[in-house]
Amino acid sequence: MHILVTNDDGVHAPGLLALAQAMRSLGDVTVLAPDRNWSGGGHVKTLHRPLRVQETALDDGTPALMSDGAPSDCVALAMLGRVPAVDLVVSGINSYGNLGHDVTYSGTVTAAMEAVITGVPGFAFSLAANNAEDKRDYVTAAGYAQRIVKAAIDNGLAPDLLLNVNIPCLPAAEIKGVRVTRQGMRVYRDRLDERLDPRGVPYYWIGGDYPIGVPDNGTDFGALAEGYVSVMPLQLDLTSYRMAQRMSHWNWGE
Amino acid sequence: MHILVTNDDGVHAPGLLALAQAMRSLGDVTVLAPDRNWSGGGHVKTLHRPLRVQETALDDGTPALMSDGAPSDCVALAMLGRVPAVDLVVSGINSYGNLGHDVTYSGTVTAAMEAVITGVPGFAFSLAANNAEDKRDYVTAAGYAQRIVKAAIDNGLAPDLLLNVNIPCLPAAEIKGVRVTRQGMRVYRDRLDERLDPRGVPYYWIGGDYPIGVPDNGTDFGALAEGYVSVMPLQLDLTSYRMAQRMSHWNWGE
Repeated sequence: MHILVTNDDGVHAPGLLALAQAMRSLGDVTVLAPDRNWSGGGHVKTLHRPLRVQETALDDGTPALMSDGAPSDCVALAMLGRVPAVDLVVSGINSYGNLGHDVTYSGTVTAAMEAVITGVPGFAFSLAANNAEDKRDYVTAAGYAQRIVKAAIDNGLAPDLLLNVNIPCLPAAEIKGVRVTRQGMRVYRDRLDERLDPRGVPYYWIGGDYPIGVPDNGTDFGALAEGYVSVMPLQLDLTSYRMAQRMSHWNWGE
Repeated sequence: MHILVTNDDGVHAPGLLALAQAMRSLGDVTVLAPDRNWSGGGHVKTLHRPLRVQETALDDGTPALMSDGAPSDCVALAMLGRVPAVDLVVSGINSYGNLGHDVTYSGTVTAAMEAVITGVPGFAFSLAANNAEDKRDYVTAAGYAQRIVKAAIDNGLAPDLLLNVNIPCLPAAEIKGVRVTRQGMRVYRDRLDERLDPRGVPYYWIGGDYPIGVPDNGTDFGALAEGYVSVMPLQLDLTSYRMAQRMSHWNWGE
């Protein structure tokens, strides 16, 4: 099993180190991750400029590769041949949760999407912290990542398997287990912060408070609120079949 | 009806002009679009830098706003208050198709997603051209955009309505009508193009051929192959309920 490890917070983030170390018991590990933080960067395919790939090392001395592309670019670079014979891709461990509607913005999740689009299973791991001060135990989170990837391997890896995993930001002893979930409702609390530059010209920060979620039973938010790891299988078919049926009666003015 | 027009190809692209003109018969129109091309840029929320909004004008003299953010940032800026009281968002007309798995990469589509996340319907319009030389009739495409938005208004706008529309790149007389579709299979044909810089250090272009699609009956590709406009309703719940059911038997090693 050849496992590619990437992330969204940049190759030297502590969550990537913990994830790479945990994956070693499951196979050969290659790291190819962004050389900087790409949070909120979305599903990118960089076509307008070339990409660099440089050698670096993780904090434990493990050789690694880093690129000036987005997380999804790192996966594309690997799968197009820069890293031969990858069997699955793991992304993370992100330093904040990727929940509800976050999935299309998230560099962590879109890296895993890119894996599935290029033909191998993809796993996104995030620690569901809410603010910078939360104490993050990446080793515990990586232990769950290891169990979840192992469970997927034991059950026969489907090439379209795409798992978005969020681990509660709790002490190990307080995490109750694993739950398979569905996508819940994110509540964004963005506010526009208009300021004037030194020349009196306005500029805008997208600011506000960290988003919250509705902890409905069965959802990612619900599982985390009760102290469980949320494992949510995703699909890349975004068709709303319910709406398609309703629209069959629409008059298109033809 | 107050309609926000944005796009992915940049505020001065001809597809935006045609779309803005076609929307005027349906309501008041405000344009807030990127100041440059953002193709393949994904669903971005720019939090690490402030955004500018400047006044400009379309080629027909209509006042417009442009931002240095992504298409989804333009929608966020508007919905957070820079453009008051928007009722719906239209994005496009993109100069290439946004089909199959393109939807998560596409700036055109993710702008419409941002509309729905912020509470109003979103429509993405793309002309399904395959190469730079294809002759693009944006006025015909904008006529279909107008009919489709009107049909949505006539049927009562649901706030979660998200339509991904692709118009065949054909002469007006050869377009056969409108079909409601589901997401088909994109076949990407990317290749990694490794080159050496003047100092002998490698760099990589994501190159290859323009992607194709599998024209299965009922899909976006299938409709376009037969000369129909593809109208595909999307949803932002990416949960794979089928996979979730299968996973209920997995052993998590606890």
